[in-house]
Amino acid sequence: MLQQSLLLTDLYELSMLEAYAAHGMAETAVFELFVRKLPATRGFLMAAGLEQATQFLESMRFTPDELAWLRTSGMFSPVFLDGLADFRFTGDVDAMPEGTVFFAGEPVLRVTAPLPQAQLAESRLINLMHFQTIVASKAARMVLAAPGKQLVDFGLRRAHGAEAGLLAARASYLAGFAGTATLLANRDFGIPAVGTMAHAFVQAHDDEATAFERFARVRPQALTLLIDTYDTERGAAIVARLAPRLAADGITIGAVRLDSGDLGAHARAVRGILDAAGLPAIRIFASGGLDEQQLLTLCRNGAPIDGFGIGTSLTTISDAPALDCAYKLQEYAGRPRRKRSEGKATWPGRKQVYRRYTQDGRIAGDTIALIDEPVDGEPLLRPAMRNGRRVDGLPTLAEARTHAAAALAQLPEALRRLEPGVVPVAISHAIRQLTTAMDRAMAPDDGP
Amino acid sequence: MLQQSLLLTDLYELSMLEAYAAHGMAETAVFELFVRKLPATRGFLMAAGLEQATQFLESMRFTPDELAWLRTSGMFSPVFLDGLADFRFTGDVDAMPEGTVFFAGEPVLRVTAPLPQAQLAESRLINLMHFQTIVASKAARMVLAAPGKQLVDFGLRRAHGAEAGLLAARASYLAGFAGTATLLANRDFGIPAVGTMAHAFVQAHDDEATAFERFARVRPQALTLLIDTYDTERGAAIVARLAPRLAADGITIGAVRLDSGDLGAHARAVRGILDAAGLPAIRIFASGGLDEQQLLTLCRNGAPIDGFGIGTSLTTISDAPALDCAYKLQEYAGRPRRKRSEGKATWPGRKQVYRRYTQDGRIAGDTIALIDEPVDGEPLLRPAMRNGRRVDGLPTLAEARTHAAAALAQLPEALRRLEPGVVPVAISHAIRQLTTAMDRAMAPDDGP
Repeated sequence: MLQQSLLLTDLYELSMLEAYAAHGMAETAVFELFVRKLPATRGFLMAAGLEQATQFLESMRFTPDELAWLRTSGMFSPVFLDGLADFRFTGDVDAMPEGTVFFAGEPVLRVTAPLPQAQLAESRLINLMHFQTIVASKAARMVLAAPGKQLVDFGLRRAHGAEAGLLAARASYLAGFAGTATLLANRDFGIPAVGTMAHAFVQAHDDEATAFERFARVRPQALTLLIDTYDTERGAAIVARLAPRLAADGITIGAVRLDSGDLGAHARAVRGILDAAGLPAIRIFASGGLDEQQLLTLCRNGAPIDGFGIGTSLTTISDAPALDCAYKLQEYAGRPRRKRSEGKATWPGRKQVYRRYTQDGRIAGDTIALIDEPVDGEPLLRPAMRNGRRVDGLPTLAEARTHAAAALAQLPEALRRLEPGVVPVAISHAIRQLTTAMDRAMAPDDGP
Repeated sequence: MLQQSLLLTDLYELSMLEAYAAHGMAETAVFELFVRKLPATRGFLMAAGLEQATQFLESMRFTPDELAWLRTSGMFSPVFLDGLADFRFTGDVDAMPEGTVFFAGEPVLRVTAPLPQAQLAESRLINLMHFQTIVASKAARMVLAAPGKQLVDFGLRRAHGAEAGLLAARASYLAGFAGTATLLANRDFGIPAVGTMAHAFVQAHDDEATAFERFARVRPQALTLLIDTYDTERGAAIVARLAPRLAADGITIGAVRLDSGDLGAHARAVRGILDAAGLPAIRIFASGGLDEQQLLTLCRNGAPIDGFGIGTSLTTISDAPALDCAYKLQEYAGRPRRKRSEGKATWPGRKQVYRRYTQDGRIAGDTIALIDEPVDGEPLLRPAMRNGRRVDGLPTLAEARTHAAAALAQLPEALRRLEPGVVPVAISHAIRQLTTAMDRAMAPDDGP
C-alpha cells in the first residue's frame, strides 16, 4: 500500500488551488509530463509508473482527518477547505504504456482535467512516474548488458526509503529482471522472491562448513550458499565436500554466491573447483557493487557467472539519480499555453508522439505533433483514464514486462549495445507554427 | 506514517531466521552500522534517521494478515511461522545522536540483541539510517555553502518515492534548512512549510500582471511571486508596478522567485528594478537545479539572493546517492566475529568512538576502540534503546537541529569551506590485537 495522503504535495499546489477557486478558474487544463534532456549516460528511457500514477489519480481525496488538520493549520480559508471535501479527479489521462521506450522532449503522459485537479496532481504524479522510469531505464541497460543472465534486485537497503525499495523491485522486474530480494514486492506485485544468506549467518557459526550444512538442511529449496566470508576458493572447496553428503539426503545445492574481490577471476576459480568435484550443475551467482558496465565486461569476457544480484547502482540509479523532467501546462480553457523561461521553454498544445520503424522492425524515429495533426507512425500515447476512472484492459505487470522486452528488441543496435546513439525526434510543422504565432501574439499590455 | 510492514525486508533475513530457529541460535549478537568509505565528494557525514530507526525497532511485529500471507506463500515451515507471532525486538541500541558529524569506519549505531532480532532488523534499519544520513550530509554542505541564507527543500517531486520526499524534508531541516515545500512534513514533523506558485498558475492567466494580482489578493501571507515565466526582468517590472496598488490594500509582496537563467545576473537586475521602485524590502528567492557548488559561487560573488529553493540535488543526493555502508555482526554468544572478505574485512568486537577536540573546540580526531577500553575523548555512541524500548529523553527534532549546528561549527575550517580535508580516525591498539589473535585462531578444520 503506497502513501495515499493528498498532503504529500507541495504547499504551493494548495495555494494555487485556493486562488483558482476564488476566481472560478476550473476550465479544462492540459498538462504534459516529459523529460527535457536525457542524462549523458542514457540513449533511451523506459516509461514506468503508470499503474501507480493512475491508482493515485483515481483515489485522490482528502480524508476528514486531513481536512481537520488543514483547518487547524490556519494556512487556508475555511470556505476553500470546505470545497476540498468533495475533491475528486474526474479527468482523462493518455500515456505511453509501461515498458515503452522514449526519448527527450516526448510527452509520456498527458492529463486533461479541470485546472485544479490537474494542478493538484502534479507533485505526486511526477514523484511516482519519475522514480519508476529512472529505475526501469537503468534496469533495461543491465538487461541489455547481460543477455540470458538471471538478474535480481538486491537493493532495498540502500534505496531511498521504503517506497523506493518496493517500487524499484517492480520497475526492474518490468524491465526484464528475474526477481527481487524484497519480500513485500512478492506479496504486493507477485514478483519472484529470491534469497541467499548474509555473511552474519556464516560468522555466527564457529566454522563455515557447519553454517552451510545447517542452512542447507533447513532451507533446501533454491539453495544458494554465500562463500566469500573468509576466502572464496576455500568456501568453494567446503561446498564441494558438502555437496555429496547433502545429495545423499536429497538436498541439492543450487548455487554459490560470490560477493567480493575480482568476481570474474573468482568465478573461474570456483567453477574449476566445482567442476573438478563433479558439480557442474551448481550455478554461480555474483553480487557486490555491480552496475551495467561491469556486467558488460564480465559477460564479454565470458566469466562463468549465471546470475547477478544488483543493489545500489539499480535502486539509487547511482549514475543518474534524477531526470530533468517537468509537468507543464500546455493548454487552458481551449487556448494553447507556453512557458518561455530561459532554457526551459515548452512547446504548446496537446500533443501525441508518432513512431516510425525500419523494415526490420527497429525504431527509425519519432515525431512530436499536435493531437489532431495528420502524421505517419504509431501513436504512442494511449487512453489510460477517462472521466476519472482507469480504462478497461490496462496492461498487467506481466504484459508490461512483455511489452518492455519487445521495446528493447526494437532499439537501434548501438543503443542495444549501450553505445552512443541518437534516435531522431522531430517537432511537427504545426507545433512550430503554433509557437511562432503565440510568441507574436504575446499580449502587449503584459509588457513592462 | 512510515511503512510498518516487516515484510519490507530481504527474503534472506527470514530464511536465516528459520535456520537460526531450527538450531536454537538466539544468543546475544552485536551488529554495528558503519560507512566503509566516504564518497569522493564528502569530507564528513552527518548521522540522521535514528528517530525513525528506533521507532521501527520498537514496533517490530508481524500482523495476523502478514503471517497468513507467509503461510500461503509456502516459503517457510508452519512451525517457524507460528513462532513469529510473538516476535518482538527486546534489545539495546547505542547510537550517535542525530546531527552528529562522523567519518569512515566509525560505528554510528550498535544493536545488541538476540541474534534473530538483530538480524531481522538489518534491511529496514539500513534503509532508514542510510537515506536520512545521506540527505543530512548533503544538506549540511549547502548550509555551510550559504551562511545566513534561507534554504528550503523543494525536492519532493524528484525524490525517490513518498517516503524519500517526506524524510528528506526532515533530514535537511535537521541539518539546518529553514523549511520545506512538502505539506505532509509540516504535519508529521512540524517543519515550517514554504510555498510560492508554479509557472502553470501564471500561464493559466492571459497576462502575468493579472496572475500576480489574483494570487496576491487570495494568498497575501508570506507572498512570493514567480517572475520568470516569460521574461524575468519584465516580471520584476510588473511586480514593481503592482506593489503600491497592493500596499494600498495592506498586502505586502514578501519576495520574488527566479527559477531560470543566470540566477546571479538576474538577481542583480531584479534587485536594481525593485530598489529603483522603492521596494528594497522585497526579498529575492532563487531556485532551479541548484547544488552546494552553485550556492558557494553565488554567495561568494555577492549575488543579492536572500533564499534558495533546493530540489533534486538535495533529495536525490545527486552527486553521491548512496554510501558504502554495512551492518555487520561483530560479536555473537560472547565471542567477537570478523568478516574477512576482500576489501570488506571488518574490525571485530563491540566498539565505541571517542572524539578529541582542539583548544578552540574544533574536532581534532577520533579513535575507534573496544567498548571497555580506556581511551581519551568524548564517547559518541549513547544509549538509544534498552530492552526494546526507547530511552527517556531522546533528542527532539529541534534539539537534534541544534546539535547539528554545533557539530558543523566544530568541523575543521577546510571541511567547513567544503575543501578537501581529513579528520584522523585511529583504530585502537586493543582492536588491532584482537583482530590479529582472531586471524591466527581461524579454526583449522574450517580450511579446505
